[in-house]
Amino acid sequence: MNERANSLAGIMTPAVLIDLDKVERNIKRLQDYADQHGLKVRPHIKTHKLPQIAAMQLKAGAVGVTCQKVSEAEAMVAATPEIRDVLITYNIIGAEKLDRLAALAKKVDLSVVADNETVIDGLRKRFVSEAKPLPVFVECNTGANRCGIATPEEAAILAETVAKSPGLTFAGLMTYPPPNGTANVQAFMVRAKALLEAKNIPVPAVTSGGTPSMMMAGEAPVTTEYRAGTYVYNDRSLVERGACGWDDCALTVLATVVSVPADNRAIIDAGSKTLTSDLLGLVGYGHVLNRPDISIDQLSEEHGRLSTLGPINLRVGDLIRIVPNHACVVTNMVDKVQVITGGHVLGAWHVCARGCIT
Amino acid sequence: MNERANSLAGIMTPAVLIDLDKVERNIKRLQDYADQHGLKVRPHIKTHKLPQIAAMQLKAGAVGVTCQKVSEAEAMVAATPEIRDVLITYNIIGAEKLDRLAALAKKVDLSVVADNETVIDGLRKRFVSEAKPLPVFVECNTGANRCGIATPEEAAILAETVAKSPGLTFAGLMTYPPPNGTANVQAFMVRAKALLEAKNIPVPAVTSGGTPSMMMAGEAPVTTEYRAGTYVYNDRSLVERGACGWDDCALTVLATVVSVPADNRAIIDAGSKTLTSDLLGLVGYGHVLNRPDISIDQLSEEHGRLSTLGPINLRVGDLIRIVPNHACVVTNMVDKVQVITGGHVLGAWHVCARGCIT
Repeated sequence: MNERANSLAGIMTPAVLIDLDKVERNIKRLQDYADQHGLKVRPHIKTHKLPQIAAMQLKAGAVGVTCQKVSEAEAMVAATPEIRDVLITYNIIGAEKLDRLAALAKKVDLSVVADNETVIDGLRKRFVSEAKPLPVFVECNTGANRCGIATPEEAAILAETVAKSPGLTFAGLMTYPPPNGTANVQAFMVRAKALLEAKNIPVPAVTSGGTPSMMMAGEAPVTTEYRAGTYVYNDRSLVERGACGWDDCALTVLATVVSVPADNRAIIDAGSKTLTSDLLGLVGYGHVLNRPDISIDQLSEEHGRLSTLGPINLRVGDLIRIVPNHACVVTNMVDKVQVITGGHVLGAWHVCARGCIT
Repeated sequence: MNERANSLAGIMTPAVLIDLDKVERNIKRLQDYADQHGLKVRPHIKTHKLPQIAAMQLKAGAVGVTCQKVSEAEAMVAATPEIRDVLITYNIIGAEKLDRLAALAKKVDLSVVADNETVIDGLRKRFVSEAKPLPVFVECNTGANRCGIATPEEAAILAETVAKSPGLTFAGLMTYPPPNGTANVQAFMVRAKALLEAKNIPVPAVTSGGTPSMMMAGEAPVTTEYRAGTYVYNDRSLVERGACGWDDCALTVLATVVSVPADNRAIIDAGSKTLTSDLLGLVGYGHVLNRPDISIDQLSEEHGRLSTLGPINLRVGDLIRIVPNHACVVTNMVDKVQVITGGHVLGAWHVCARGCIT
């Protein structure tokens, strides 16, 4: 009975499994690289949303964590005494969010980003009466074409606005680069930094991020700090890009075959409510471990369809493990994950920052 | 202050809004059609996952509800005294799920489906000692190529197995057809029914489903009961298929513009953690109400990118409303929805069956 309780057969499916030994190894890999290149590490908690893993990252040498939304930072700070330093890489807008931000700034060393004057204006008005000024990074667009100031010249102007705003301090420059955007980061940041230093505005930090290019972060030596999220689990998108191997994937989805309606088709109990529809440019919705011949070619909410060219050789009741296309979004689908160490099931951990969208 | 509290401006974004007046109208539309065609309605709760809306559907004339997973049925039954009859349209496997199924069968009239002998065997072994036998539908594949028995002949054989199993009763035939699969449903079910009746096995019900073809359900007169989910909210996929108009879409996502980094680009605070990556064959991730010129061309977890050919004419802080590609999956992303009636915000409802994947 105990044997069953500690084995995968004792877990109700679908379930998200986290292999802690692989997590530990993945954390060490980035930290070692960063240490060699004089970079600070500030992991993005979006991938795991777990206090236990944030604590492991900090213990390994991370200087703080990255969160994307105020509510996400609140959940992580409340659950993780080890977290003393948080960067929220988001433009924060609105009275209620600003009030919550101010409350959070009393609990930890907090910084945020801004890429426009409306956001800076809101931050300034809310923080001008606070005892501690709020450090604000200026977000720069180095090619991902999401948020971010378009040119080093405009970034320098916005940084000056921050530096002159009572209630705020200028914390530095931030970017979320495109994959392999290291050269862009270097060129943009060096130029913006020079413009600011010419105005006697020091740039205390340059923070870049993203797992796909993390092992090239050192090729943009202007960078002082690196934010990565997915590296802690890895996923199919990173394997397919050559960033890691299947054995480095710490998050897998355990699913049960519920139907084998044809020789070359099987249905599992994990659909888009577990694996999500994120494709990230790939074909199919995940990789079935040890079965490279299977493609997960269709998802509905609670059904995943497995197809093969030859016979599928699966029986109703069989368990399979899937490396999802994108680990971070899978974490966000579940209230708990099943944690494995040394090949045994340790138990379930509550995903404390799941669903924090505001 | 009260004005603000009752208006959209008082809601933290991103948020999922439900227009109850449209919900009421959508429920009436299907119920009226079903009444005219002598069909019973059994709504799929996956779209709303809300006891309040299940109660509205039952009050309008639904005979019961459909759920997809045991945990989903448990959550809905626990929260909704009006629910007395539940069909779980899923192959249930595993000791723990079967025990929970048996417990649920003591609370409501419960039925399930099966498309293979392994599942029937598990149900039989668990229910043989129960006081009340479990009604089991046989799931048939009428072209969706998901679960389901491939031919009427095989369906009749499996139905006979159910009918002869102590602890179970044969409840009828079930299918989830492909869009516009009405003719397939009619042909398959008439044939399977005739085969069974020739063996003196009555077919108490034939249940079909799906919102895209619900207004054609009457064209498969063998059908006795219809399961639809998305109709209660509608979404962009249904508008694009001509099944309804934008004004029939009861679920919208309220988002704030957080950045306008270029003349033809804006970023909103709703990403794949709210809108999801479900495409359903469409281009882009949703429809911005009153702005058909905008395409939502990229999502990351917390960022949605809006692009236009001409100037985007949005400012940081602007609110927009989005009809998502797929309403059901958006419901599953949030702990609460904001309910609107008569143009005013009524308040937040807890999404009680969110995340029920087992």
